[in-house]
Amino acid sequence: MKTVIIGSGNVAYHLAKAFTQNNIEVHQIFGRNEIELKKISEEFNIPFSAKKLEDADFYLISVSDSSVEQVSELIKKEDALVAHTSGSLPMEILKGNYRKANFYPLQTFSKTKNLNYSKIPFFIEAENQIDEKSLFELASIISENVETSDYERRKYIHLTAVFACNFVNHLFARAKEISDSQNLDFNYFIPLIDETVEKIHHLEPKSAQTGPAVRGDERVLKLHEDLITDEEHLKIYQLMNESIKKMYQ
Amino acid sequence: MKTVIIGSGNVAYHLAKAFTQNNIEVHQIFGRNEIELKKISEEFNIPFSAKKLEDADFYLISVSDSSVEQVSELIKKEDALVAHTSGSLPMEILKGNYRKANFYPLQTFSKTKNLNYSKIPFFIEAENQIDEKSLFELASIISENVETSDYERRKYIHLTAVFACNFVNHLFARAKEISDSQNLDFNYFIPLIDETVEKIHHLEPKSAQTGPAVRGDERVLKLHEDLITDEEHLKIYQLMNESIKKMYQ
Repeated sequence: MKTVIIGSGNVAYHLAKAFTQNNIEVHQIFGRNEIELKKISEEFNIPFSAKKLEDADFYLISVSDSSVEQVSELIKKEDALVAHTSGSLPMEILKGNYRKANFYPLQTFSKTKNLNYSKIPFFIEAENQIDEKSLFELASIISENVETSDYERRKYIHLTAVFACNFVNHLFARAKEISDSQNLDFNYFIPLIDETVEKIHHLEPKSAQTGPAVRGDERVLKLHEDLITDEEHLKIYQLMNESIKKMYQ
Repeated sequence: MKTVIIGSGNVAYHLAKAFTQNNIEVHQIFGRNEIELKKISEEFNIPFSAKKLEDADFYLISVSDSSVEQVSELIKKEDALVAHTSGSLPMEILKGNYRKANFYPLQTFSKTKNLNYSKIPFFIEAENQIDEKSLFELASIISENVETSDYERRKYIHLTAVFACNFVNHLFARAKEISDSQNLDFNYFIPLIDETVEKIHHLEPKSAQTGPAVRGDERVLKLHEDLITDEEHLKIYQLMNESIKKMYQ
Protein backbone atom coordinates (compact mmCIF):
# COMPACT_ATOMS: atom_id res chain seq x y z
CA MET A 1 0.00 0.00 0.00
CA LYS A 2 1.32 3.40 -1.05
CA THR A 3 0.98 5.28 2.24
CA VAL A 4 0.68 8.99 3.08
CA ILE A 5 0.65 10.31 6.65
CA ILE A 6 -1.24 13.56 7.18
CA GLY A 7 -0.23 15.66 10.19
CA SER A 8 2.96 16.80 11.89
CA GLY A 9 2.04 16.61 15.59
CA ASN A 10 3.12 14.15 18.27
CA VAL A 11 1.12 11.17 16.96
CA ALA A 12 2.01 11.77 13.30
CA TYR A 13 5.68 12.07 14.26
CA HIS A 14 5.68 8.76 16.16
CA LEU A 15 3.70 6.93 13.47
CA ALA A 16 6.19 8.15 10.85
CA LYS A 17 8.97 6.91 13.12
CA ALA A 18 7.31 3.55 13.86
CA PHE A 19 6.62 2.95 10.14
CA THR A 20 10.18 3.87 9.17
CA GLN A 21 11.74 1.74 11.91
CA ASN A 22 9.73 -1.23 10.67
CA ASN A 23 10.60 -0.66 6.99
CA ILE A 24 7.06 0.33 6.06
CA GLU A 25 7.56 2.91 3.34
CA VAL A 26 5.81 6.25 3.79
CA HIS A 27 5.39 7.92 0.42
CA GLN A 28 4.73 11.42 1.75
CA ILE A 29 4.06 13.33 4.95
CA PHE A 30 1.52 16.07 4.33
CA GLY A 31 0.26 18.89 6.55
CA ARG A 32 0.06 22.61 7.22
CA ASN A 33 3.09 23.18 9.43
CA GLU A 34 6.08 23.28 7.07
CA ILE A 35 8.61 23.63 9.88
CA GLU A 36 7.44 20.47 11.66
CA LEU A 37 6.95 18.58 8.37
CA LYS A 38 10.50 19.43 7.32
CA LYS A 39 11.89 18.13 10.64
CA ILE A 40 10.01 14.83 10.30
CA SER A 41 11.00 14.60 6.63
CA GLU A 42 14.68 15.04 7.44
CA GLU A 43 14.68 12.72 10.45
CA PHE A 44 12.98 9.80 8.66
CA ASN A 45 13.82 10.56 5.03
CA ILE A 46 10.18 10.93 3.95
CA PRO A 47 9.19 13.46 1.24
CA PHE A 48 6.92 16.19 2.63
CA SER A 49 4.54 18.78 1.27
CA ALA A 50 2.26 21.45 2.69
CA LYS A 51 0.76 22.10 -0.74
CA LYS A 52 0.13 19.03 -2.87
CA LEU A 53 -1.25 15.80 -1.44
CA GLU A 54 0.16 12.83 -3.36
CA ASP A 55 -1.94 10.02 -4.75
CA ALA A 56 -1.85 7.01 -2.42
CA ASP A 57 -3.64 3.79 -1.51
CA PHE A 58 -3.72 4.55 2.22
CA TYR A 59 -4.05 7.93 3.93
CA LEU A 60 -3.46 8.02 7.67
CA ILE A 61 -4.92 11.22 9.13
CA SER A 62 -3.21 12.10 12.39
CA VAL A 63 -4.27 15.65 13.16
CA SER A 64 -6.15 17.23 16.07
CA ASP A 65 -9.71 15.93 16.46
CA SER A 66 -11.17 19.28 15.44
CA SER A 67 -9.34 19.20 12.07
CA VAL A 68 -9.99 15.59 11.04
CA GLU A 69 -13.22 16.31 9.13
CA GLN A 70 -11.81 19.27 7.20
CA VAL A 71 -8.59 17.43 6.35
CA SER A 72 -10.55 14.36 5.23
CA GLU A 73 -12.24 16.47 2.55
CA LEU A 74 -8.89 17.11 0.88
CA ILE A 75 -8.69 13.46 -0.18
CA LYS A 76 -10.38 13.12 -3.59
CA LYS A 77 -9.12 9.66 -4.55
CA GLU A 78 -12.04 7.22 -4.38
CA ASP A 79 -10.01 4.03 -4.64
CA ALA A 80 -8.26 4.64 -1.34
CA LEU A 81 -8.44 3.64 2.30
CA VAL A 82 -8.50 6.55 4.77
CA ALA A 83 -8.03 6.07 8.51
CA HIS A 84 -7.89 8.59 11.32
CA THR A 85 -6.06 7.96 14.60
CA SER A 86 -8.49 9.53 17.07
CA GLY A 87 -9.87 7.64 20.05
CA SER A 88 -12.93 9.84 20.26
CA LEU A 89 -14.18 10.25 16.70
CA PRO A 90 -16.25 7.79 14.62
CA MET A 91 -15.08 6.66 11.19
CA GLU A 92 -18.01 8.61 9.72
CA ILE A 93 -16.28 11.91 10.55
CA LEU A 94 -14.28 11.20 7.39
CA LYS A 95 -16.01 12.97 4.49
CA GLY A 96 -15.23 11.48 1.09
CA ASN A 97 -16.10 8.66 -1.30
CA TYR A 98 -13.31 6.40 -0.10
CA ARG A 99 -13.19 3.42 2.28
CA LYS A 100 -13.06 4.56 5.93
CA ALA A 101 -11.22 3.25 8.95
CA ASN A 102 -9.75 4.03 12.36
CA PHE A 103 -6.20 3.25 13.50
CA TYR A 104 -5.92 4.17 17.20
CA PRO A 105 -2.64 3.77 19.10
CA LEU A 106 -3.26 3.82 22.88
CA GLN A 107 -0.29 5.77 24.15
CA THR A 108 0.83 9.24 25.29
CA PHE A 109 3.12 10.71 22.64
CA SER A 110 5.69 13.47 22.97
CA LYS A 111 8.18 14.10 20.18
CA THR A 112 11.16 14.27 22.51
CA LYS A 113 10.42 10.92 24.12
CA ASN A 114 11.47 7.61 22.57
CA LEU A 115 8.98 4.77 22.66
CA ASN A 116 8.96 1.01 22.31
CA TYR A 117 6.24 0.69 19.68
CA SER A 118 5.99 -3.09 19.98
CA LYS A 119 4.16 -2.75 23.34
CA ILE A 120 1.63 -0.12 22.28
CA PRO A 121 -1.94 -1.44 21.90
CA PHE A 122 -3.40 -0.54 18.49
CA PHE A 123 -7.17 -0.60 18.00
CA ILE A 124 -8.43 -1.07 14.45
CA GLU A 125 -11.82 -0.49 12.85
CA ALA A 126 -12.75 -0.48 9.16
CA GLU A 127 -15.91 -0.41 7.09
CA ASN A 128 -15.13 -3.74 5.48
CA GLN A 129 -13.34 -6.88 6.58
CA ILE A 130 -10.63 -6.78 3.91
CA ASP A 131 -9.48 -3.32 5.04
CA GLU A 132 -9.77 -4.33 8.68
CA LYS A 133 -7.54 -7.32 8.00
CA SER A 134 -4.95 -5.27 6.12
CA LEU A 135 -4.82 -2.58 8.83
CA PHE A 136 -4.60 -5.29 11.47
CA GLU A 137 -1.63 -6.78 9.64
CA LEU A 138 -0.04 -3.35 9.21
CA ALA A 139 -0.36 -2.57 12.93
CA SER A 140 0.96 -6.04 13.74
CA ILE A 141 4.24 -5.20 12.01
CA ILE A 142 4.66 -2.39 14.56
CA SER A 143 3.09 -3.88 17.68
CA GLU A 144 2.49 -7.23 19.37
CA ASN A 145 -0.74 -5.87 20.76
CA VAL A 146 -3.38 -5.25 18.07
CA GLU A 147 -7.14 -5.56 18.51
CA THR A 148 -10.23 -4.57 16.59
CA SER A 149 -12.57 -2.12 18.28
CA ASP A 150 -15.73 -0.32 17.26
CA TYR A 151 -16.38 3.33 18.13
CA GLU A 152 -18.51 2.58 21.20
CA ARG A 153 -15.69 0.60 22.77
CA ARG A 154 -12.99 3.02 21.61
CA LYS A 155 -14.70 5.95 23.36
CA TYR A 156 -14.46 4.13 26.69
CA ILE A 157 -10.85 3.14 26.02
CA HIS A 158 -10.07 6.81 25.49
CA LEU A 159 -12.01 7.88 28.60
CA THR A 160 -10.18 5.32 30.74
CA ALA A 161 -6.89 6.56 29.31
CA VAL A 162 -7.72 10.13 30.35
CA PHE A 163 -8.05 8.97 33.97
CA ALA A 164 -5.03 6.64 33.88
CA CYS A 165 -2.68 8.96 32.00
CA ASN A 166 -3.74 12.60 31.57
CA PHE A 167 -5.10 13.04 35.10
CA VAL A 168 -2.21 11.09 36.61
CA ASN A 169 0.29 13.35 34.88
CA HIS A 170 -1.61 16.39 36.15
CA LEU A 171 -1.27 15.07 39.71
CA PHE A 172 2.48 14.81 39.13
CA ALA A 173 2.47 18.43 37.94
CA ARG A 174 0.51 19.58 41.01
CA ALA A 175 2.72 17.48 43.32
CA LYS A 176 5.75 19.17 41.81
CA GLU A 177 4.24 22.59 42.54
CA ILE A 178 4.03 21.62 46.22
CA SER A 179 7.56 20.24 46.32
CA ASP A 180 8.91 23.27 44.42
CA SER A 181 7.20 25.60 46.89
CA GLN A 182 9.35 24.04 49.66
CA ASN A 183 12.50 23.74 47.54
CA LEU A 184 12.28 19.97 47.73
CA ASP A 185 14.04 18.02 45.00
CA PHE A 186 11.28 16.34 42.96
CA ASN A 187 13.68 13.45 42.36
CA TYR A 188 12.94 12.33 45.93
CA PHE A 189 9.51 11.30 44.68
CA ILE A 190 10.58 9.34 41.60
CA PRO A 191 11.17 5.99 43.40
CA LEU A 192 7.75 6.40 45.07
CA ILE A 193 6.06 7.16 41.73
CA ASP A 194 7.85 4.24 40.05
CA GLU A 195 6.71 1.90 42.79
CA THR A 196 3.13 3.22 42.69
CA VAL A 197 3.00 2.06 39.06
CA GLU A 198 5.12 -1.06 39.53
CA LYS A 199 2.62 -2.18 42.19
CA ILE A 200 -0.32 -2.24 39.80
CA HIS A 201 1.58 -4.66 37.56
CA HIS A 202 1.03 -7.14 40.41
CA LEU A 203 -1.89 -5.89 42.52
CA GLU A 204 -5.37 -4.59 41.77
CA PRO A 205 -5.19 -0.78 42.14
CA LYS A 206 -7.99 -1.00 44.69
CA SER A 207 -5.92 -3.38 46.86
CA ALA A 208 -2.77 -1.30 46.44
CA GLN A 209 -4.27 1.87 47.96
CA THR A 210 -2.30 3.41 50.83
CA GLY A 211 -2.37 6.82 52.50
CA PRO A 212 -4.34 8.73 55.14
CA ALA A 213 -7.79 8.64 53.46
CA VAL A 214 -7.98 4.85 53.12
CA ARG A 215 -6.75 4.52 56.73
CA GLY A 216 -9.39 7.02 57.85
CA ASP A 217 -6.65 9.13 59.43
CA GLU A 218 -8.56 12.38 59.96
CA ARG A 219 -5.68 14.00 61.87
CA VAL A 220 -3.34 13.78 58.88
CA LEU A 221 -6.07 14.90 56.47
CA LYS A 222 -6.64 17.99 58.62
CA LEU A 223 -2.90 18.60 58.97
CA HIS A 224 -2.48 18.51 55.19
CA GLU A 225 -5.45 20.79 54.57
CA ASP A 226 -3.88 23.30 56.92
CA LEU A 227 -0.56 23.08 55.04
CA ILE A 228 -2.12 23.67 51.61
CA THR A 229 -2.22 27.32 50.56
CA ASP A 230 -3.20 26.90 46.90
CA GLU A 231 -6.93 26.75 46.19
CA GLU A 232 -6.56 24.28 43.29
CA HIS A 233 -4.45 21.97 45.44
CA LEU A 234 -7.06 22.08 48.21
CA LYS A 235 -9.91 21.24 45.81
CA ILE A 236 -8.02 18.24 44.46
CA TYR A 237 -6.95 17.18 47.96
CA GLN A 238 -10.50 17.21 49.31
CA LEU A 239 -12.19 15.61 46.30
CA MET A 240 -9.66 12.78 45.95
CA ASN A 241 -9.82 11.94 49.65
CA GLU A 242 -13.63 11.95 49.62
CA SER A 243 -13.55 9.67 46.59
CA ILE A 244 -11.07 7.30 48.26
CA LYS A 245 -13.22 7.15 51.40
CA LYS A 246 -16.33 6.35 49.35
CA MET A 247 -14.58 3.55 47.48
CA TYR A 248 -13.69 1.75 50.73
CA GLN A 249 -16.90 2.46 52.67
CA MET B 1 22.94 -0.89 68.63
CA LYS B 2 20.60 -3.50 70.01
CA THR B 3 17.49 -2.84 67.92
CA VAL B 4 13.79 -3.55 68.45
CA ILE B 5 11.13 -2.89 65.81
CA ILE B 6 7.65 -2.15 67.13
CA GLY B 7 4.74 -2.83 64.79
CA SER B 8 3.65 -5.52 62.35
CA GLY B 9 2.11 -3.52 59.50
CA ASN B 10 3.42 -2.84 56.00
CA VAL B 11 6.21 -0.47 57.03
CA ALA B 12 7.36 -2.58 59.99
CA TYR B 13 7.42 -5.65 57.74
CA HIS B 14 9.57 -3.96 55.11
CA LEU B 15 11.92 -2.41 57.67
CA ALA B 16 12.41 -5.83 59.26
CA LYS B 17 13.12 -7.20 55.81
CA ALA B 18 15.48 -4.37 54.83
CA PHE B 19 17.41 -4.68 58.09
CA THR B 20 17.69 -8.46 57.75
CA GLN B 21 18.77 -8.30 54.10
CA ASN B 22 21.53 -5.89 55.09
CA ASN B 23 22.71 -7.98 58.06
CA ILE B 24 21.50 -5.44 60.61
CA GLU B 25 20.43 -7.57 63.55
CA VAL B 26 16.93 -7.00 64.91
CA HIS B 27 16.74 -8.21 68.48
CA GLN B 28 12.94 -8.38 68.68
CA ILE B 29 9.81 -7.47 66.80
CA PHE B 30 7.12 -6.33 69.22
CA GLY B 31 3.46 -5.46 68.72
CA ARG B 32 -0.17 -6.33 69.34
CA ASN B 33 -1.01 -8.53 66.38
CA GLU B 34 0.47 -11.95 67.21
CA ILE B 35 -0.51 -13.48 63.86
CA GLU B 36 1.34 -10.83 61.86
CA LEU B 37 4.27 -10.77 64.29
CA LYS B 38 4.64 -14.53 63.99
CA LYS B 39 4.72 -14.31 60.18
CA ILE B 40 7.43 -11.64 60.23
CA SER B 41 9.32 -13.55 62.90
CA GLU B 42 9.32 -16.74 60.83
CA GLU B 43 10.15 -15.05 57.55
CA PHE B 44 13.16 -13.11 58.88
CA ASN B 45 14.15 -15.20 61.87
CA ILE B 46 13.55 -12.42 64.41
CA PRO B 47 12.20 -13.20 67.92
CA PHE B 48 8.77 -11.67 68.51
CA SER B 49 6.56 -10.85 71.43
CA ALA B 50 3.16 -9.28 71.98
CA LYS B 51 3.70 -9.22 75.75
CA LYS B 52 7.20 -8.25 76.89
CA LEU B 53 9.20 -5.51 75.24
CA GLU B 54 12.91 -6.35 75.37
CA ASP B 55 15.60 -3.96 76.59
CA ALA B 56 17.31 -2.32 73.63
CA ASP B 57 19.46 0.65 72.57
CA PHE B 58 17.23 1.60 69.65
CA TYR B 59 13.46 1.27 69.35
CA LEU B 60 11.96 1.84 65.92
CA ILE B 61 8.21 2.51 66.24
CA SER B 62 6.43 1.68 63.02
CA VAL B 63 2.76 1.67 63.88
CA SER B 64 -0.22 3.71 62.64
CA ASP B 65 0.08 7.44 63.37
CA SER B 66 -2.77 7.31 65.87
CA SER B 67 -0.97 4.67 67.98
CA VAL B 68 2.55 6.15 68.04
CA GLU B 69 2.07 8.21 71.22
CA GLN B 70 0.50 5.37 73.21
CA VAL B 71 3.11 2.85 72.05
CA SER B 72 5.93 5.27 72.88
CA GLU B 73 4.82 5.28 76.51
CA LEU B 74 5.59 1.56 76.77
CA ILE B 75 9.32 2.29 76.49
CA LYS B 76 10.69 2.87 79.98
CA LYS B 77 14.41 2.64 79.26
CA GLU B 78 15.97 6.12 79.55
CA ASP B 79 19.30 5.28 77.96
CA ALA B 80 17.74 4.53 74.60
CA LEU B 81 17.10 6.12 71.24
CA VAL B 82 13.48 5.96 70.04
CA ALA B 83 12.45 6.83 66.49
CA HIS B 84 9.08 6.72 64.78
CA THR B 85 8.65 6.30 61.02
CA SER B 86 5.76 8.68 60.39
CA GLY B 87 5.96 11.47 57.82
CA SER B 88 3.31 13.51 59.56
CA LEU B 89 4.18 13.40 63.25
CA PRO B 90 6.81 15.44 65.13
CA MET B 91 9.46 13.72 67.26
CA GLU B 92 7.75 15.24 70.30
CA ILE B 93 4.81 12.84 69.91
CA LEU B 94 7.13 10.33 71.58
CA LYS B 95 6.42 10.37 75.33
CA GLY B 96 9.31 9.19 77.47
CA ASN B 97 12.62 10.17 78.99
CA TYR B 98 14.68 8.81 76.13
CA ARG B 99 16.36 10.42 73.09
CA LYS B 100 13.89 11.04 70.29
CA ALA B 101 14.17 10.75 66.54
CA ASN B 102 12.36 10.24 63.25
CA PHE B 103 13.28 7.69 60.57
CA TYR B 104 11.00 8.26 57.57
CA PRO B 105 11.20 6.04 54.46
CA LEU B 106 9.47 7.72 51.50
CA GLN B 107 7.79 4.80 49.78
CA THR B 108 4.46 2.99 49.42
CA PHE B 109 4.68 -0.35 51.19
CA SER B 110 2.59 -3.47 50.70
CA LYS B 111 3.67 -6.75 52.26
CA THR B 112 3.11 -8.76 49.10
CA LYS B 113 5.29 -6.48 46.97
CA ASN B 114 9.08 -6.78 46.87
CA LEU B 115 11.10 -3.56 46.96
CA ASN B 116 14.59 -2.40 46.10
CA TYR B 117 15.43 -0.66 49.38
CA SER B 118 18.62 0.93 48.06
CA LYS B 119 16.59 3.46 46.03
CA ILE B 120 14.19 4.51 48.78
CA PRO B 121 14.82 8.01 50.17
CA PHE B 122 15.14 7.97 53.97
CA PHE B 123 14.67 11.21 55.92
CA ILE B 124 16.30 11.40 59.34
CA GLU B 125 15.78 13.73 62.28
CA ALA B 126 17.12 13.43 65.82
CA GLU B 127 17.30 15.61 68.94
CA ASN B 128 21.08 15.52 68.96
CA GLN B 129 23.78 15.33 66.32
CA ILE B 130 25.28 12.05 67.53
CA ASP B 131 21.98 10.23 67.17
CA GLU B 132 21.33 11.93 63.85
CA LYS B 133 24.70 10.73 62.60
CA SER B 134 24.16 7.17 63.79
CA LEU B 135 20.68 6.98 62.23
CA PHE B 136 22.04 8.49 59.05
CA GLU B 137 24.70 5.76 58.95
CA LEU B 138 22.13 3.08 59.70
CA ALA B 139 19.83 4.24 56.88
CA SER B 140 22.86 4.48 54.58
CA ILE B 141 23.45 0.75 54.96
CA ILE B 142 19.99 0.21 53.48
CA SER B 143 19.73 3.06 50.99
CA GLU B 144 21.90 5.24 48.75
CA ASN B 145 19.48 8.08 49.29
CA VAL B 146 19.54 9.41 52.88
CA GLU B 147 18.87 13.00 53.96
CA THR B 148 18.17 14.83 57.17
CA SER B 149 14.85 16.61 57.43
CA ASP B 150 13.06 18.52 60.14
CA TYR B 151 9.33 18.13 60.79
CA GLU B 152 8.31 21.20 58.80
CA ARG B 153 9.96 19.84 55.68
CA ARG B 154 8.82 16.28 56.32
CA LYS B 155 5.16 17.35 56.42
CA TYR B 156 5.45 18.76 52.90
CA ILE B 157 7.31 15.66 51.69
CA HIS B 158 4.41 13.58 52.97
CA LEU B 159 1.81 15.90 51.41
CA THR B 160 3.57 15.79 48.04
CA ALA B 161 3.69 11.99 48.31
CA VAL B 162 -0.08 11.85 48.84
CA PHE B 163 -0.61 13.64 45.51
CA ALA B 164 2.10 11.71 43.64
CA CYS B 165 1.27 8.26 45.00
CA ASN B 166 -2.01 7.85 46.91
CA PHE B 167 -4.12 10.00 44.57
CA VAL B 168 -2.44 8.54 41.49
CA ASN B 169 -3.26 5.02 42.65
CA HIS B 170 -6.85 6.09 43.26
CA LEU B 171 -7.07 7.32 39.66
CA PHE B 172 -5.87 3.88 38.54
CA ALA B 173 -8.61 2.31 40.68
CA ARG B 174 -11.27 4.62 39.20
CA ALA B 175 -9.91 4.06 35.67
CA LYS B 176 -10.22 0.33 36.23
CA GLU B 177 -13.86 0.76 37.27
CA ILE B 178 -14.55 2.40 33.90
CA SER B 179 -12.66 -0.26 31.95
CA ASP B 180 -14.33 -3.07 33.95
CA SER B 181 -17.75 -1.56 33.25
CA GLN B 182 -17.09 -2.11 29.52
CA ASN B 183 -15.35 -5.48 29.94
CA LEU B 184 -12.10 -3.94 28.71
CA ASP B 185 -8.90 -5.70 29.74
CA PHE B 186 -7.10 -3.30 32.11
CA ASN B 187 -3.80 -4.64 30.75
CA TYR B 188 -4.42 -2.51 27.64
CA PHE B 189 -3.65 0.51 29.81
CA ILE B 190 -0.44 -0.73 31.43
CA PRO B 191 1.92 0.41 28.61
CA LEU B 192 0.22 3.82 28.70
CA ILE B 193 0.58 4.05 32.49
CA ASP B 194 4.21 2.91 32.31
CA GLU B 195 4.95 5.57 29.70
CA THR B 196 3.13 8.27 31.68
CA VAL B 197 5.62 7.68 34.48
CA GLU B 198 8.62 6.98 32.26
CA LYS B 199 8.05 10.40 30.67
CA ILE B 200 8.52 12.31 33.90
CA HIS B 201 11.96 10.74 34.30
CA HIS B 202 12.89 12.93 31.32
CA LEU B 203 10.35 15.76 31.10
CA GLU B 204 8.81 18.20 33.57
CA PRO B 205 5.31 16.87 34.33
CA LYS B 206 3.91 20.22 33.22
CA SER B 207 5.55 19.83 29.78
CA ALA B 208 4.47 16.19 29.49
CA GLN B 209 0.74 16.94 29.77
CA THR B 210 -1.43 15.54 26.97
CA GLY B 211 -5.19 14.96 26.61
CA PRO B 212 -8.33 16.89 25.74
CA ALA B 213 -8.23 19.48 28.56
CA VAL B 214 -4.76 20.83 27.77
CA ARG B 215 -5.70 20.95 24.05
CA GLY B 216 -8.91 22.81 24.95
CA ASP B 217 -10.91 20.14 23.11
CA GLU B 218 -14.39 20.92 24.45
CA ARG B 219 -16.06 18.40 22.11
CA VAL B 220 -14.18 15.46 23.67
CA LEU B 221 -14.72 16.78 27.20
CA LYS B 222 -18.48 16.92 26.52
CA LEU B 223 -18.43 13.48 24.86
CA HIS B 224 -16.71 11.98 27.91
CA GLU B 225 -19.07 13.69 30.37
CA ASP B 226 -21.96 12.14 28.46
CA LEU B 227 -20.34 8.69 28.65
CA ILE B 228 -19.78 8.83 32.41
CA THR B 229 -22.61 7.37 34.47
CA ASP B 230 -20.93 7.27 37.91
CA GLU B 231 -21.22 10.43 40.00
CA GLU B 232 -17.77 10.04 41.58
CA HIS B 233 -16.18 9.59 38.16
CA LEU B 234 -17.92 12.73 36.89
CA LYS B 235 -16.75 14.82 39.85
CA ILE B 236 -13.16 13.73 39.32
CA TYR B 237 -13.43 14.20 35.56
CA GLN B 238 -14.70 17.76 35.86
CA LEU B 239 -12.37 18.88 38.63
CA MET B 240 -9.22 17.48 37.03
CA ASN B 241 -10.02 19.04 33.67
CA GLU B 242 -10.74 22.42 35.26
CA SER B 243 -7.45 22.17 37.13
CA ILE B 244 -5.55 21.27 33.95
CA LYS B 245 -7.12 24.20 32.08
CA LYS B 246 -6.18 26.62 34.88
CA MET B 247 -2.57 25.42 34.90
CA TYR B 248 -2.13 26.22 31.20
CA GLN B 249 -4.19 29.43 31.06
